[in-house]
Amino acid sequence: MADRATDRIRPAVRGIAAYRVAIPPHRIKLNQNESPIELPAALKAEILERLRGIPWARYPEQQETALPAALKASLALPEGIDVITGNGSNELIQALLTAILEPCASIVIPASTFSLYRQFAAILGAKIVAVPLEADLAIDPDRLAAAARDAGAQAIVFARPNNPTGTAIPVDGVERLLARTSSLVIVDEAYVEFAHDSVVDLLGVHDRLIVLRTFSKALRCAGLRIGYMAAAAELVAEVRKVVPPFNTSILDRETAAAIVRNLELLRPGIEATIAERERMVGALDGIDGVAPIPSEANFICFRTDVPPRVVFDRLLERGILVRDVSGYPLLSDFLRVSIGTPEENGAFLAALREIMEDR
Amino acid sequence: MADRATDRIRPAVRGIAAYRVAIPPHRIKLNQNESPIELPAALKAEILERLRGIPWARYPEQQETALPAALKASLALPEGIDVITGNGSNELIQALLTAILEPCASIVIPASTFSLYRQFAAILGAKIVAVPLEADLAIDPDRLAAAARDAGAQAIVFARPNNPTGTAIPVDGVERLLARTSSLVIVDEAYVEFAHDSVVDLLGVHDRLIVLRTFSKALRCAGLRIGYMAAAAELVAEVRKVVPPFNTSILDRETAAAIVRNLELLRPGIEATIAERERMVGALDGIDGVAPIPSEANFICFRTDVPPRVVFDRLLERGILVRDVSGYPLLSDFLRVSIGTPEENGAFLAALREIMEDR
Repeated sequence: MADRATDRIRPAVRGIAAYRVAIPPHRIKLNQNESPIELPAALKAEILERLRGIPWARYPEQQETALPAALKASLALPEGIDVITGNGSNELIQALLTAILEPCASIVIPASTFSLYRQFAAILGAKIVAVPLEADLAIDPDRLAAAARDAGAQAIVFARPNNPTGTAIPVDGVERLLARTSSLVIVDEAYVEFAHDSVVDLLGVHDRLIVLRTFSKALRCAGLRIGYMAAAAELVAEVRKVVPPFNTSILDRETAAAIVRNLELLRPGIEATIAERERMVGALDGIDGVAPIPSEANFICFRTDVPPRVVFDRLLERGILVRDVSGYPLLSDFLRVSIGTPEENGAFLAALREIMEDR
Repeated sequence: MADRATDRIRPAVRGIAAYRVAIPPHRIKLNQNESPIELPAALKAEILERLRGIPWARYPEQQETALPAALKASLALPEGIDVITGNGSNELIQALLTAILEPCASIVIPASTFSLYRQFAAILGAKIVAVPLEADLAIDPDRLAAAARDAGAQAIVFARPNNPTGTAIPVDGVERLLARTSSLVIVDEAYVEFAHDSVVDLLGVHDRLIVLRTFSKALRCAGLRIGYMAAAAELVAEVRKVVPPFNTSILDRETAAAIVRNLELLRPGIEATIAERERMVGALDGIDGVAPIPSEANFICFRTDVPPRVVFDRLLERGILVRDVSGYPLLSDFLRVSIGTPEENGAFLAALREIMEDR
């Protein structure tokens, strides 16, 4: 007999902590890589008008077809590649790992990358093979490949550009990784709109490549839940079994469809963020005791020669919330700052300059 | 080396089919137990106005606190019981089973009940102990308890009222089930608003009881994704680890909050559905060759002495879509019809009378 209800919970779950992002009071929010600007008001108004006109009490299509079709067209995906939409890319990553990982199966994950991959794998009782970042915080695809072969890993998962570092494995590195292993290679392109390139063109060539994307970052919908996965149709069909039916809300579906129809309206915001990022890297480089990592994302990981927690606290005293990533392997000297509006970025830079001058 | 990408998918997933509801063209939709009426237009307008005013580009609270607190208050839940909201109750059931079931762990499921429980358990590689319904299509809690004890089951899961039959285990039966087993007892109250009573009052007494509810049925939001789970706070804390962060959209959060503030506006619709259900049971009883099961839900399961598939097809020829449940164990002679508007129900009854007279 179990004594307590929680005795029925699997040890793999009892043994871990919940994923949590602490949000202390702040004035300027640069800690979650959100878009600093909202969707254009006219586009929101158009979406809200559509929502007013469609039934809410009825189930929608069980799994979307129109949005995946629009995404396939917009990405120019070849025959044989399918797209599934999800309640955020998180849902799809979790479903994918559930489809792949038996307890004790191995998965290769760089240390560090987005921490939810590890959380989901741990819940499933998988064996996590952590591959440290290089000294320059890059992920070395050849080390991932070697680790995957040694472990007989079912899968390799990472973000490209990587979070929290902002660097990206070169496309030919991902190709080499695919060529040198038989594992599934899961590439989370959450920040791809800010990057030089994407691995989607490899989808038609390698049937073990799985690409995830999201509407939460460049597409300005972190408050909604829209992500998608592109992969060989046979793989998508298996993931579809694991994802609950009717997994996305009509409110989110309508918003995503409207955004895909109006992508060009969002490009200036993306370009402005990239320009601000380049300005920020230059400015950070000019602050004594600060060293930024060049980034392909909408955030910058930077080293400080004052303990990051101290800098974090002093920024927060000035109302500026950034992300303390110093708990991650190899990142004990680092903070991460999201690219905000020019005004927000300016306030952050001024505050950081002041803090570093006073150190 | 794996030859094909799908070789990396677990056999438990490869071996099952995806959950699918076929939706052929129709004029009157009585197959998914949706509300036949929309939210009041003024309430929708209020929700849309709130949506216009809040940021979409920012992450909301990681997991909701205001809505769970409002639900706890509205259900008068005692200290020590917590509520978690989810992307539909489906997400929470799947997370809960992921937290509980190792491969080869046992779970007791009546045959038949809502089919997703079985699907989720199968994906996890669990051993499913199916307990047949009684001759009157009731679920016998004592048989569930015996099966759970014999199998050393981690959990027992069923819907109350049950789907697709519409009958409910009496509350004292659920109490007996809790007293006679040490398994977790998961009660899906998706249709509780149409029932005589609920098991929520047992939550303070039995820490192994878990209750799930949804906004998809009586609360008129099948197109959205809002469900919740109430259980001992320690159990909820474990499920919270498995559910991805930011799991619900702000659009759905705002809608749910507005509904909880305005529940009294929805009561007349629920009462109308119950009245229509009673009228429908009487009318079905009066059709020669048809025998309805008394229901506590917003649907009726009914036997026909013509093969159900034939009746289904002839109803569909007349534009009326019901649910063919004849593939479920013990239900080979049954169809299920949702309670629609009086006009829809009248059209259904007239069509069924005609079909049965012509048999």
